[in-house]
This record gives sequence, structure tokens and C-alpha cells, in this order.
Amino acid sequence: MTGQPALFPRLVETSEEAWHAYTRHKFLLLLASGELPEACFRRYLVQDYLFLLHFARAWGLAIYKSDTLAEMRRAQRLVAATLDVEIGLHIDYCRGWGLSEAGMAAEPEALATIAYTRFVLDRGLAGDRLDLEVALAPCIVGYAVIAAERIADPATRLGGNRYREWLEMYAGREYQDLAREAEAALDEGFARRGGEGRFASLAANFALAARLEADFWQMGLDAAN
Amino acid sequence: MTGQPALFPRLVETSEEAWHAYTRHKFLLLLASGELPEACFRRYLVQDYLFLLHFARAWGLAIYKSDTLAEMRRAQRLVAATLDVEIGLHIDYCRGWGLSEAGMAAEPEALATIAYTRFVLDRGLAGDRLDLEVALAPCIVGYAVIAAERIADPATRLGGNRYREWLEMYAGREYQDLAREAEAALDEGFARRGGEGRFASLAANFALAARLEADFWQMGLDAAN
Amino acid sequence: MTGQPALFPRLVETSEEAWHAYTRHKFLLLLASGELPEACFRRYLVQDYLFLLHFARAWGLAIYKSDTLAEMRRAQRLVAATLDVEIGLHIDYCRGWGLSEAGMAAEPEALATIAYTRFVLDRGLAGDRLDLEVALAPCIVGYAVIAAERIADPATRLGGNRYREWLEMYAGREYQDLAREAEAALDEGFARRGGEGRFASLAANFALAARLEADFWQMGLDAAN
Amino acid sequence: MTGQPALFPRLVETSEEAWHAYTRHKFLLLLASGELPEACFRRYLVQDYLFLLHFARAWGLAIYKSDTLAEMRRAQRLVAATLDVEIGLHIDYCRGWGLSEAGMAAEPEALATIAYTRFVLDRGLAGDRLDLEVALAPCIVGYAVIAAERIADPATRLGGNRYREWLEMYAGREYQDLAREAEAALDEGFARRGGEGRFASLAANFALAARLEADFWQMGLDAAN
Repeated sequence: MTGQPALFPRLVETSEEAWHAYTRHKFLLLLASGELPEACFRRYLVQDYLFLLHFARAWGLAIYKSDTLAEMRRAQRLVAATLDVEIGLHIDYCRGWGLSEAGMAAEPEALATIAYTRFVLDRGLAGDRLDLEVALAPCIVGYAVIAAERIADPATRLGGNRYREWLEMYAGREYQDLAREAEAALDEGFARRGGEGRFASLAANFALAARLEADFWQMGLDAAN
Repeated sequence: MTGQPALFPRLVETSEEAWHAYTRHKFLLLLASGELPEACFRRYLVQDYLFLLHFARAWGLAIYKSDTLAEMRRAQRLVAATLDVEIGLHIDYCRGWGLSEAGMAAEPEALATIAYTRFVLDRGLAGDRLDLEVALAPCIVGYAVIAAERIADPATRLGGNRYREWLEMYAGREYQDLAREAEAALDEGFARRGGEGRFASLAANFALAARLEADFWQMGLDAAN
Repeated sequence: MTGQPALFPRLVETSEEAWHAYTRHKFLLLLASGELPEACFRRYLVQDYLFLLHFARAWGLAIYKSDTLAEMRRAQRLVAATLDVEIGLHIDYCRGWGLSEAGMAAEPEALATIAYTRFVLDRGLAGDRLDLEVALAPCIVGYAVIAAERIADPATRLGGNRYREWLEMYAGREYQDLAREAEAALDEGFARRGGEGRFASLAANFALAARLEADFWQMGLDAAN
Repeated sequence: MTGQPALFPRLVETSEEAWHAYTRHKFLLLLASGELPEACFRRYLVQDYLFLLHFARAWGLAIYKSDTLAEMRRAQRLVAATLDVEIGLHIDYCRGWGLSEAGMAAEPEALATIAYTRFVLDRGLAGDRLDLEVALAPCIVGYAVIAAERIADPATRLGGNRYREWLEMYAGREYQDLAREAEAALDEGFARRGGEGRFASLAANFALAARLEADFWQMGLDAAN
């Protein structure tokens, strides 16, 4: 892998338009300035809860698709992080926003939630584990990029911002480390299962996944109406 | 199976609201009266072309998921009908609407197209062949129901209706027979792989598939703006 | 489910011959009497290590195939039990038999190992989660039945038996509880996804899985030559 | 792809021992000299019938795993060739050997049949379409290589050899063309989805598939006892 440019920045570079439409979506700019209507954030929180169930399924699938014990263990850690930690934290956090777990579980999945989650799972089943991890990268790595960019942006207002906790969680050390690990896994996968011939198709999937993530923010924003 | 009420009407009955939102969608009422803006129909045609590729993939998956040679052959016939006949007819028909195959293949998939197709494939992979066929039923059987209902509706105007050919194709004998065969396959599947305990989960999938089909019409209708 | 006879004993009853060929295989009778050649046991231990990797993959697949959070968590616990506990214990135990992890990982999979593990995974992918759990039942529940039967058998000799630890582990409370939980999951799955129509096909898969498990013992026994 | 050595010969070269154990198996040498006991050939024919059902499933899976319409159509042709032509020819041919379709369908699958078919399907599901085609290559391309080598071998005796028809079918133009097409598809897949990093893992799968094919011949040969 030495000398080889990392896969994640290459994927971002070739899908720049979709990437910025996602990572600099109006939903995020309003969230960072504190002006996002609460209805939008609540809608996002509910759908993100429903999203997490499929996210855990995707990492379960990655266990099945592993070639080595090390790959299996990384996927297992992400299933555990999702089912044991993230869903719990999410439920606690949502309670602070007046949303109960039962209430969220009873909500219908939005079109954008169905589209992104099932797209990822189909990529993972039709392709191999590298296809699966590339389709998940806009989510896992993207949230780290988004939070770091917003925190660094002078237009962002942390004081008195009710969304501060959200920004700081994803900008925080722990989540940033998890994203770095995901980037390293992409490089490792590309070295072992990839090759230049495969780049175009990986980039197309990455761009589509980024577009579906942008649709996810838009779905939140549409709750303002 | 004797004495047992057929599965398809039971599925329709328990998801009545979603079913009518789909089968009596405004897109269809306007199409039947001839008032649907052409932009809406063109949008639908393009996305339906993209849909058909995943429809063929779904029946390929059904071959894999078959328990018997007879099941395999039915799925194979549907792959062949899609790849050898339907896509060809669709391309011919679309040409009459000024749409080229290359042009359609280059269009991005709409959110509604991604959501329904990948939902079906995920159901088919997470569940068994009965889950797959139930998720496909709103499409295969639904189109036959829709066309027959519109043709029978006094508000429908066939003379001078540029969408007449579409209505008559799906109301025609050949397609109606294909839909009856799909209904019979549901009954056979439910007898061999089902049981009452399974009905609730099949019905939930059917209702969600119907909802995603309604979103597909809505996507066409939204092209009017 | 009340009044309904449990699924596991019904499966055993309809595949009695295959079940006894597996659970009362000569390998086990010799193991219980202490007369099993060590070469046979070592062969079994190595292949069981290779088996466990696919067993973990199967439960990863079950996470993907879950309909509920509870189902997901049970599958996750079994992945964790396999990757975090069982493989570790197995490696420790094998070390006592002079087998290193690297050595076992480098061994080719025996035909019987490939046949059973890939059969289970294919069942799980072609069918639904109930098909997967039924294909795994001869392994999970079967080991509990085998150990309990051998311990209760007057022909079994524990004193001075170098395989005693193995028998006592699977006859022990902890493993027996895990098997009971697996039986309960079968009943729950059959109630929610099954029905009488499905029993014949589940029974056929169960019988084939039991036959493949018997081939696994035979593969161990063949190491004596 | 220009200048790039073809994938198939590279795979053969790196798994030479397994490849020759398969393609020059005693079963084949006896078949070519006409000395193979009929019981061995009958056993092979029955298991090959059972094998073909899973072979069709594998190509159904390939339809699902296709990225392009061209890929879909190639997989569809192979499903059709298997279900519409090969199984029919096989049944006719077997009738000449006193084997009825019903009789063959009622036979239990041999361990070697289960191991190879389910290994292929698992590779296809855990990996991508290239993994699937590489796992199938020892079968599709291998039979062409085997027949051509035997026909060219001076030790082969065609006159009065009751297996002559079998040799000539696979050595014939039509089958040889199908094998060339499969080799071309491997090159195309490797160019579009591969890269050097992936070669080692593809070669390991190829070698294992060849080993399982050798086990298949051995299963036939064992019927002599």
C-alpha cells in the first residue's frame, strides 16, 4: 500500500459535487448555526433510529462476508457498537428531545431511509465486502468529516446552540478515531480485493451513497413545512 | 389448499389504505382520463426502464432461492420475459415517446426507484422466496388490477387517449394471465412455506411495497412541476 | 404456541435414523469409553476450529436476517460467544493437545467440514432465518443432547478418560442452557414464520444437516487409519 | 486488457497440483481407455444431475449479481442452457444408461456434490460475481480442458469405448466455444473488478474448487467398491 494514495480521499475527489451536496447540506449549516427548526431535527432523530437497525444488519452481513478472523472481529465490534452503545445513546439522547423508543419504533420509515439502507444492503450482497464498506463510508466517515468541518467553520455558533452536543460527539476524539479506522479498512480492502480497474465502479457507488445521504438530510429539512 | 382463501386478496384486504393509495393514485386517474401531462409519463417511462433491470435481478435471485425445478423454471421464464421481451417492448414503446435507450440508461435512478427495487431485493435476501414474491406482488399483480379497474371505470376515456396502449396492454389477456399465475404462485408458496403465523409479517411487507409503488407514481406526477 | 408440540423433538422424531447415526456415532461411543484414538480426536479438534469460523459467519448472517432487535441481539450474542469465548477456549484446549492456532489455521478444510458449513450458509441465504436456525440445530442443540446421553450411559467411563473434559463441558449447565435457548428460538421462529405446510421442508433440511454432522464424526474416525 | 496475460491460465499455473489431481484423475484416465466400471459412471451421472440443479441456481445468482445488462444476459443464457438444454440432454443420455429422472431426483446428494455446489454458492454470495465465476471455472472451463486432453492422449481409445459420446461432447466445438466464452468473461471481470491484489485470494478459491472437483471424480470411482 506504500506510496498508494488513500482510497477515501480519492472517492471524495471523484464525486465532489455529490459529496458537497451531502456534507454541506443546508440541514447541516442550519444545525451548526443553531437555526435548524426543532421539527427537522426530531424527524432526523426518529429516522436515524430506524436507520441504525439496518446499519447493524449491514455489519452483521459484513461478518458473513469476512475472509479473515480480523475482518470478522472488526465487523463484530461495529455490530456491538451499534446495538450495545449507539442505539442506547441514541435512545437516551432522543428522550431528551421528547422522543420515546416505542414511539420511534412505531414510525414508518421515510422514503430516504428505505432508499439508503436497502441500497447499502443490496450493494453488500451483490458485491463483496469492499463494495459494502464503500457504500457505508459516506455514513461512517462522512459524519466525522461533517462535524470537523462545521466545528472549524467560523459561521458555526456553539454557545447556546441546542445541537452542540450532536456536533461535539461526532467531532470528538472517539468518533474521529472510528472514522480513521474505517478509512484504513478501505485501504486494506482495496489493496487486497481491489485494483485500479475497480475504482470506477466503487466511485459510482460512493457517489450514489453520498447522494442518498443528502436525500436523508433533505427529508429532515422537509419536516419544517 | 382447498377451502383456503387465496393469499393475494387477503393481503390486499389487510392493507386497504396503502393499496388504494397505490392502485387509485392520481397519476393513474389522470392517465385514464388522458389528462396526465406528458412530462409525467416520460418520467415514469424512464424510471420504469431502470426499474426493469432490478426486476430481472429479483427473478434471477428467485432462481437461486428455488427449492424445485418447477420453481426455478417459473423464475427463469420471468427473467426471460423481462430481458428478452419486456425491456425490448419498453424500449420500442419509449422510442415512440422520443426516449432513446442510451438516454434512459444514462438517467439517474429516482429516490422512489431505488427505494422500491432495493427494498424488494433485501426482502428477497433476508427472507425466503415467499417474502420475495410477496414484495413483488404489488407490481406484477397490481398492474393487472390497476388496468382492469381503469378500463372498467366510466371516467376512463380511451378514444383519443395517448395512454390507451399502456392501459390496454396491462388489461389485455396475456398480462392478466401472467398476473393470475403470480397469484397462484403466492398460494402455492403460502401452502408450502407459510402458515397463519406468517401472515402478519407478509402483510406488513406487502403494505410497504404498495406504499413504495404509490411513491413511484408520485415521482412521475412530480415531473409536472 | 401453547398446546403446540415443540419443534425440535418433532424434527428429531421425523429424522430418527439420521439423528441416531449422528448422535450415537461410533466416534462418540469410543470417546465416551475413552477408547477413541487420539489421532481421531486431534483431527476432529482441528476441523472443529475451522468449522467455528463459518459458525460465526452463520450467526453474522442471522444478524442480517433478523426482523426484530431481539432477534438481532440473540444472533449477536452467538457471534460474540463464538469469536470471543469459544474460539479462545478451543485454542486453549487444543494447545493442551499439542495443537497450535497457527497450525490449525493452516490445515486444509476436510470435505465434511466444507459440506456441512456451506450447506448451512446456503440454507440460510436461500431460505429465511428459520431455515438457517434449523440447519444449525443439529450442531447447537445436538451437542447438548449427545453429551447428556453419553454422561447418562452406563457404558461411559469418566474416570481416567482423557475426553472427560469435553463431555462435561457440553453436558454442563451453561451449554445445556444455551441449547434450551436455541430450542426456544426454533419454537418462536416456527410460530412466527412457520406453519404446518413448512414442516416437511424443515424436516428434510434438519435430516440432511444431521447426516452431514455424522459425516463430520466419520471424518474424525477415519484419521485412525 | 491488452498485454495482460489471461486469468484462467494464471489460475491453473498457481494451483498446478490441485489442477492435475482434478483434470488427470484416475476416473478420467479409465473413462478415456474405456476401462471405467459402469457403476462408477452411473454414480457420476446421478450426482451430476443433482449438481446441475445447483449449477442453475449459481447462474441465477449471477443474474442478481450483474452490474450490466450484458452480464445479466450471459448469466441468463447459462441458466437457460442448463435448464432447457443440458438437464434435458442429461436425462436423455442417462436413460440410455438405465437411469430415470425420477430415480435420479430421489437419490441423496453425495458429500462431494454438497461440498462443491454449496462452496460455489457461498463464494458467490460472500464475494462478488468474479468470485462466483472463478469458483465455477474448474467446472465450465475444466471439462473442456479435460476432454481435449483426453482426446489428444494416445492412451485414449475411442473405438468401442462406451464413454466416447461423453468425451466427444465436451471436446466438441460447441462446448469448447462455451468454455472460451467463460475464459473471456473471467478476463473481463478481472479487468473491471480485479487487480493484482486480488489474485492470491482468487487463486486460493480456484485451487479449492479444483480440489472439490477431484473429490467429485473420486466419489464416482468409489462406487466400484
